[in-house]
This record gives sequence, C-alpha cells and structure tokens, in this order.
Amino acid sequence: MENAGLPIGLDDVRAAAERLRGVANRTPVMTSRTFDALAGDGTRVFFKCENYQRVGAFKFRGAYNHIASLAPEERARGIVATSSGNHAQGVALACRLLGAPATILMPSDAPATKLAATRGYGATVVLYDREKTYPETFVQEYATTHDLHWVPAYDDPLIMAGQGTAALELVEEVGALDFFLAPMGGGGLMSGCATAVKGLLPGTKVFGVETEGADDWVRSLARGERVMIDPPATIADGIRTRQPGVRPFAQCRALLDGVVVVSDEEVREAMRFMVTRMKMLVEPTGAVAAAAVMAGKLGDLAGKRVGVIVSGGNVDPDVLCEVLTGA
Amino acid sequence: MENAGLPIGLDDVRAAAERLRGVANRTPVMTSRTFDALAGDGTRVFFKCENYQRVGAFKFRGAYNHIASLAPEERARGIVATSSGNHAQGVALACRLLGAPATILMPSDAPATKLAATRGYGATVVLYDREKTYPETFVQEYATTHDLHWVPAYDDPLIMAGQGTAALELVEEVGALDFFLAPMGGGGLMSGCATAVKGLLPGTKVFGVETEGADDWVRSLARGERVMIDPPATIADGIRTRQPGVRPFAQCRALLDGVVVVSDEEVREAMRFMVTRMKMLVEPTGAVAAAAVMAGKLGDLAGKRVGVIVSGGNVDPDVLCEVLTGA
Repeated sequence: MENAGLPIGLDDVRAAAERLRGVANRTPVMTSRTFDALAGDGTRVFFKCENYQRVGAFKFRGAYNHIASLAPEERARGIVATSSGNHAQGVALACRLLGAPATILMPSDAPATKLAATRGYGATVVLYDREKTYPETFVQEYATTHDLHWVPAYDDPLIMAGQGTAALELVEEVGALDFFLAPMGGGGLMSGCATAVKGLLPGTKVFGVETEGADDWVRSLARGERVMIDPPATIADGIRTRQPGVRPFAQCRALLDGVVVVSDEEVREAMRFMVTRMKMLVEPTGAVAAAAVMAGKLGDLAGKRVGVIVSGGNVDPDVLCEVLTGA
Repeated sequence: MENAGLPIGLDDVRAAAERLRGVANRTPVMTSRTFDALAGDGTRVFFKCENYQRVGAFKFRGAYNHIASLAPEERARGIVATSSGNHAQGVALACRLLGAPATILMPSDAPATKLAATRGYGATVVLYDREKTYPETFVQEYATTHDLHWVPAYDDPLIMAGQGTAALELVEEVGALDFFLAPMGGGGLMSGCATAVKGLLPGTKVFGVETEGADDWVRSLARGERVMIDPPATIADGIRTRQPGVRPFAQCRALLDGVVVVSDEEVREAMRFMVTRMKMLVEPTGAVAAAAVMAGKLGDLAGKRVGVIVSGGNVDPDVLCEVLTGA
C-alpha cells in the first residue's frame, strides 16, 4: 500500500531514520512482568520509551528530520516554531545541532522550567499573550515578517515521518505485534507510527488513545471530517490539541483500526504503575497508551503481543508528586 | 590474580551469571550527554541500571544465586532472611521462583509498602522489635530453631558473586573503563563487582562510595580492620550498615583503589538530576555513585570512561517528592 495517495509512506519514515542515525537516541524497549500479568494471561507488552529520547520526548525526531531536510541557506536564515511543550525543546535542540538560529514563540504563562529549557538549548524565546493570540496565526505571520522557516508541530510530512521512526525501531527490535498503541494529539506521532507499523506488519491492529474531553480524534473519525472541540482540561497536556491536523487526519483515517478513550484517573493509575513499579519517569501523555491496556480498553489481550509508545517524560515535579501522593 | 586466597574469584561471578541467565533482567546501560558534560570534557559515564532489576534492585542477583545453589532438599526445608529493605524482596522472589518456603524477619516499624511487597512475593513475614532485638542474632537463632537455611545479606560468597554479575554485564556491554564506582553498605555488591572489573579490566580504578556519617568502609580500610560506627542517619538507607562484612572486607581491601565520601545534599542533587533529566526513578543509595562523579570526588575525569552502578529504585514516594520539591 506504499503511499497510495497518503501524505507519507514507509519510505519517508525510512529516510527519516537515516537522517536521525547517530543523532537521536535509539531508545530502549522496556518490559514488565507485572504489567504483563495485569494486561492478560500470557500477554507481552513492549514499551518504546521516548521519555529517554533527547529533550525527553519523541518530538526531537520530527523536528530534526524536518530541519535537517532543509537547504543549508534556508536553515541559515533561521527557524521559528510555536509550542509550550516538547516541540519547543525538540526544535531548539535540532537547530543547535544543525547550526540554525531558532526563535520559539511561547505563551507568557508557560512554566518557567520549559522557558528555561528552551533557552538552554540556545533558542530565542518570544512570549505572547495566550488570551489575545492564536498561535498558529501568530507563528505564520512571524515567519513571514522575519523571513524565517516555520516548523509545524504535527501537520507536516517531515514531522510525521520523523516521529514514525519510534515505531520503526520498535518493530525492528521486537518483531511481530498483534496491537500497537500511541497517544493522539495533533496526530503527528501516530501518522508516522501507523505508517511504519502497517507498512512492516500489515496484520497489526493500530489504535490511537485519547483522554476523556480530548476526544477530537474519536469525533472526527466518526464524522469523517476534522471536528474542533472545546479546549480540553485533561491532565495529559501533550494531547490538549482541539482538532486533528489536516495531513495526520488523512493518514490516520486510512491506517487506524480505531481510537479508544481513557479517563484522567486511568492515566494517573498508569503513571503511578510506571513510576513506582517500572521506575520510569513519564509525563501524563506518556502514560496514556499504557492506561488503555491497563484499563482493558482493547478487550481480551490474552496471549497477545502489544507495542506501546511512551511518548515522553517531561513532567513537572509538582504534577508528579500530586499523582504519586495525592497531595 | 584468580582468587589468590580471596573469598571469591572471577569464576564465581561467571558461574553466578550462568545461574541468573534468563531469570534476572539483563538491565540496560543508560547514558546522558548532559551528565557527561557535567562530569568533564569528553567524559563518558555508563550507568548500569539495577533500578530496572527484578524487585527494583541488584539484591535479586545474589539472593537467587545463593538459593539456586542449594541442594533441593535444603531449599525444600525453607529459607530465612532478615532485612527491612531490598534483600527481603530479593530473597522472597527468588524463593517463589525456586519453590522454596520463605520467612523474612522484618522490624515492626518497616514501611507498610515494604511489608506488603515482601508478602506479595509469597513470603511469611515475622515482625520483631528493633529496640529489643539484634537482627543478626535473631535470624541465626530463628534458623536453628525452625531448621531453616539462612541467606545473609552480604557476608557470603554466593551473595557477593551474584551481585558481581551487574558489573560483569556492564563490562561485557561497554568494554574498557578507566573508573568503576559502586555504593558500599555491607560490601556484597562491591565485592562481586570489583572482582568482575579487576578480573576483566585490571587497569580500571575501582572506587567505593559512602555518605558522610556512614563511612565505616573509609575508617575500616584506613585502620586495616573492620570498624563499627554509630547508626548512620544518612538519606541513603541502603548503606546504613554499621560495619563491613568479614568476607567483603577481605575482598575489597585487596581489590579497591579507594572509597570516597559524598554528602546527603550531593546525593539529593544527583537524585534530582537522574529523575528529572534522565527520567529514571532511583532510590537515594542508587544515586550515591553518580553523586561522587557530579561532585568531582574523583578529580579530573576529562576524556575518561566511567562505569557507575545505579543500585536500586525503591524509593518511597514521600522521600522522592521531598527531594524533588523540597516540601
């Protein structure tokens, strides 16, 4: 089904993997006998741990793939992106590694740690007022005015292909899978991952996971068009997007077997398990796919092999401790 | 220098590795570019992550090696051990896997989570009053009275050899090292690790790490005999032993290049780095060796390759959150 009119194909993910070789971390695949036993009789769950990726999340993959693909003179003019989270750090680090000036537009109420981390990678941070500014419009205007190249967070073939290298590595390492799960925000991660998984293992069932109230993908796939939801209040801040991206929607509509929804409390329970039992720090969004397995959202998994993307580990200590201790 | 009159030799560690094959986790070796940059110009630090070992700490290695080496009829009569920490869980799980009844003597004020975890592995827990009972005496009496086999926590060749498989795997995976560091409590871990490292890489400098106030090894090595210190108040609860074990003292006195001391605040800082930047949950003792590198206790490490044992990840959420947030 190579490409078949979709925004990206398996070859794009493979090309991204070549660009990322020796630059991105080849993150470990972790397993837990205790988690397997909770998941079902004879179930094997393979966690692809992007919390151990550079900048602490998969976002580095797509950002580097995009920026490394630009012509040198385009890179030299400078890069702009907008994000209050992991995409900001991914773009900032990729720019530093590739010698491109980076400007990141961030909401003025972004956590001080995220501002500091982004500046720490050498980026110039421009603050905007979240109440008065629609970031997608602002970043495009800013790019035009300042003659900078805009790197979108998800609605972009190079970003989608770059994120898919996480699933490519997972399949290369563990082989056959009955199920594959990843969290869905704008859909960049899932677009690339579904392309890799379905390209290599056509029989694998691929499911996205959202949280209650952040179910723009469930609604959009049911309607057959991109639905915009109210700003979601979920703890999973990485998937608080209000609408699927255009290209991710085309890609995922063609490739996914479904999208399941978990509650914030199910995410918290998965986080507690992963931190206290598996000793891995994960951010709430990083626990979303594991939560779907723990909460039985895929039905009977007895004897099945399940691949799960742990998307990131950049959790604020206050949030972590609130989840762990309830205080 | 194979054995040379010491309690264990490299062959004992290799035999333990055979017994543990497919049973213990071959734990990952993690690296961090940011940690490397803090450690020195061109320094490479390799973290052997026993926080991802079964039961969350290296202790499973030695316990399983000891119990698997017993005659079946001896195992069938039952095993006893005393510990308020990771050794309890290591023995309990090894017994369950090997079909041996396990009795663990634990202080009545041990954390409820540790009691529950030990019982969760199927062990019978017998509580004792820490004020009135000296555990080493109690466990030996209990073993005699109930005809059980006692598995010591560190002063035992099979325990020492089992723990050494962590360093054996590290050297197999990363090759040459200029320095090797591990925390020292009773000395079981370091005995086996130093045996593996010096056996495979005779030129590697091997250093133990203790915390201020828990420096029984520094004092004992300086005096040339085992010194007993007052009960230490360090945050690193895994190394609150008051005196080196007899066999570990003989082994480590022959093999170590030195023991360095870090402060509790240096341990906290290393914990914060490992949790927030490396996304790994570590217990305070698990951060002790990394703290020695971060705090510059080994002098100039520019261009050096350094192996570090992360001994475990069983940290109480309250302790973790106090370290992370200061609250």
